[in-house]
Amino acid sequence: MSLFLQVVSVSKAVEELRNLAVRCGDEPVPLSDALHRILARDVHTDVDIPGFTRSVVDGYAVRATDTMGSSDAIPSILPLRGRVAMGKSDSNSLRPVECIYVPTGGILPDGADAVVMIEHAEQIGGEVLIKKPVAYGENVLFFNEDFSRGEPVVKCYKKLSAQDIGVLAAAGCRDVPVVQRPKIGILSTGNELVPVTVRPQAGQVRDVNSYVIAAAIRDWGCSPVFYGIIRDEREALSTVICKATAECDAVLISGGSSKDDRDMVAAIIAEHGTVLVHGIAIAPGKPTIIGQCNGKPVIGLPGHPASAFIVLIAIVHHLITAMTGETDSSMRTLQATLGQNVSSSKGREEYVRVAVKDGIATPLFGKSGLLNTLVRSTGVVRVPAESEGLETGTRVEVIVW
Amino acid sequence: MSLFLQVVSVSKAVEELRNLAVRCGDEPVPLSDALHRILARDVHTDVDIPGFTRSVVDGYAVRATDTMGSSDAIPSILPLRGRVAMGKSDSNSLRPVECIYVPTGGILPDGADAVVMIEHAEQIGGEVLIKKPVAYGENVLFFNEDFSRGEPVVKCYKKLSAQDIGVLAAAGCRDVPVVQRPKIGILSTGNELVPVTVRPQAGQVRDVNSYVIAAAIRDWGCSPVFYGIIRDEREALSTVICKATAECDAVLISGGSSKDDRDMVAAIIAEHGTVLVHGIAIAPGKPTIIGQCNGKPVIGLPGHPASAFIVLIAIVHHLITAMTGETDSSMRTLQATLGQNVSSSKGREEYVRVAVKDGIATPLFGKSGLLNTLVRSTGVVRVPAESEGLETGTRVEVIVW
Repeated sequence: MSLFLQVVSVSKAVEELRNLAVRCGDEPVPLSDALHRILARDVHTDVDIPGFTRSVVDGYAVRATDTMGSSDAIPSILPLRGRVAMGKSDSNSLRPVECIYVPTGGILPDGADAVVMIEHAEQIGGEVLIKKPVAYGENVLFFNEDFSRGEPVVKCYKKLSAQDIGVLAAAGCRDVPVVQRPKIGILSTGNELVPVTVRPQAGQVRDVNSYVIAAAIRDWGCSPVFYGIIRDEREALSTVICKATAECDAVLISGGSSKDDRDMVAAIIAEHGTVLVHGIAIAPGKPTIIGQCNGKPVIGLPGHPASAFIVLIAIVHHLITAMTGETDSSMRTLQATLGQNVSSSKGREEYVRVAVKDGIATPLFGKSGLLNTLVRSTGVVRVPAESEGLETGTRVEVIVW
Repeated sequence: MSLFLQVVSVSKAVEELRNLAVRCGDEPVPLSDALHRILARDVHTDVDIPGFTRSVVDGYAVRATDTMGSSDAIPSILPLRGRVAMGKSDSNSLRPVECIYVPTGGILPDGADAVVMIEHAEQIGGEVLIKKPVAYGENVLFFNEDFSRGEPVVKCYKKLSAQDIGVLAAAGCRDVPVVQRPKIGILSTGNELVPVTVRPQAGQVRDVNSYVIAAAIRDWGCSPVFYGIIRDEREALSTVICKATAECDAVLISGGSSKDDRDMVAAIIAEHGTVLVHGIAIAPGKPTIIGQCNGKPVIGLPGHPASAFIVLIAIVHHLITAMTGETDSSMRTLQATLGQNVSSSKGREEYVRVAVKDGIATPLFGKSGLLNTLVRSTGVVRVPAESEGLETGTRVEVIVW
């Protein structure tokens, strides 16, 4: 039972796959562990930020109108009424035509509406010479100017950056509601495969895919679960696929690399569920299988690590973001100018590895099975299915890896 | 003792800081934990990759010359001599004018030099009709075409990507020599600070910086070590700075936000070591201190989270990369067109937060102390010290965060 001839477009394959995705649940994590996690709910601040009107410089709290026209030559002279201590609300109020010293972060005294930096003032005894005028609000952060109590500070489904963590801290969020990491089962099939620890004999190759796949999905916030190398035997493979789909949110099977092996993987998926796609109009990566077992998405990736990696980026990444709900999940890209012509077959989406230097993207031709082009390249350029190629000098978007 | 008036340039500050960096040692980690770690030594492959000449398609192994002139109308007819089994070296050699079936990944039989894809052939009984000629080497990966045994596959000081992990797997590297994570002590000073778990009273603010700093340096591969909030008391601060510099590879102190507090931090560093820089020509971030205690770099960051974050990116990041030796440590950037004029004071490097949309970088003006501009921005544009500003329409490089 080979469905391989019904090759579908990349967008159709992605659509089928996204439909299979089950949204992950959420869990609380301590704020210090929340970096790069995906926020599961809007977080609102429990306080006004700032909670009081404060100075952002070391200087003299004043009424701005009292500094009008001040200059080095003709400074305004204001009596110094006292000092604000850090972390304390001061009982002193500022009266017209006087000033109070306030450190950076200190509470602005009642009656003041601006701060003159110490660099622009000079204290002489009990008086301060103001040498530069300030405007209303200058060097001051007003009460709740940043966020009002109850306001959402970070929106749900955002992947949390260091700054987001800072805002969550300010908002009093000690346990952060985040989306659970998708648990992804990984297994490799193929009688030619040996573990990395074994020196391969003639005809054998090391199981590179388990490592590449695990690393890529970890980068995308998933937890890999390893099921090892399974020989191309129907019984063994069937047992492991059932176990993995029962235990994980999705399963990635890489290899069997030959048509017979792929057909076996497809047959096992069909036996326990449904095969939706067997063959995608993508190069490299055509012999990809998309199905469902135990209500979980199962993807059969090509055996070549280089091809498997393209399918991860072009197809599987969409599954992960559908599972987590991440907003702005687009991959990192850069703009470059194509340094050489790229030809492509109409009817399939082609991913060409390029090395980018000084804004020029040079295609790394060579056989798609070579690992060295993967590590020598900066990323890939996508040639759409309807295109017959791209000409030298075309501005391209490089998906960076 | 204030050295604050001797403000130094950003490049001078970075140079001083890099000179203080002590290179981290290295440690072995399992290959499956090596993603984003920095490789400490060149890794060489212990085998040829591939270890045998193999087919990259399902098809018929042939001598390319035997397929010359083949077409749908006039196929070449080759007797089928057998099948190659996956993972086994075949004893069959190919003789002229015959073919052997070989699955993807199978060993190419001796005597063959190319493979005809099954899509371009038709088996009829014991013979195969070849309908398309193949060139020498077509659909074949030759012995060690990817890497030769003993060849370096990944160079030292590279931050390992998923593809690098794959190549290390192929090379038989089960334990990866990586640079140890820099251990960075983090402490906050300021009598106005309260922990995130506490609701701040008038005059108090939550300790945002410990979280922002820890998240940023984690992103850069460091291990944060928290020393908490220390009140602005000389004895307490001195004790913690000594302890942190003894235990960590570098220490980041944020706040005290006022001039008096900064001077106290500088005085304590001077007492136990040296203050090299007190004041940098950068905005925001001027009141930054760089020194050394216990032979370890100590950096006094501004109290404002927004300013502290800029100093992390513009200054501290260089310290981290000097400690790890990471090559290609440049920050992620994107090109954009400035959507509004930006004015800047000559003589200081200015970092302007921008939001990038559709290739247009719009400066987020507003007070530098606001957290909301940090989370609303895509990144920052650097305005060099010698510039008085940038005009609308200028192509700018945005440091993305």
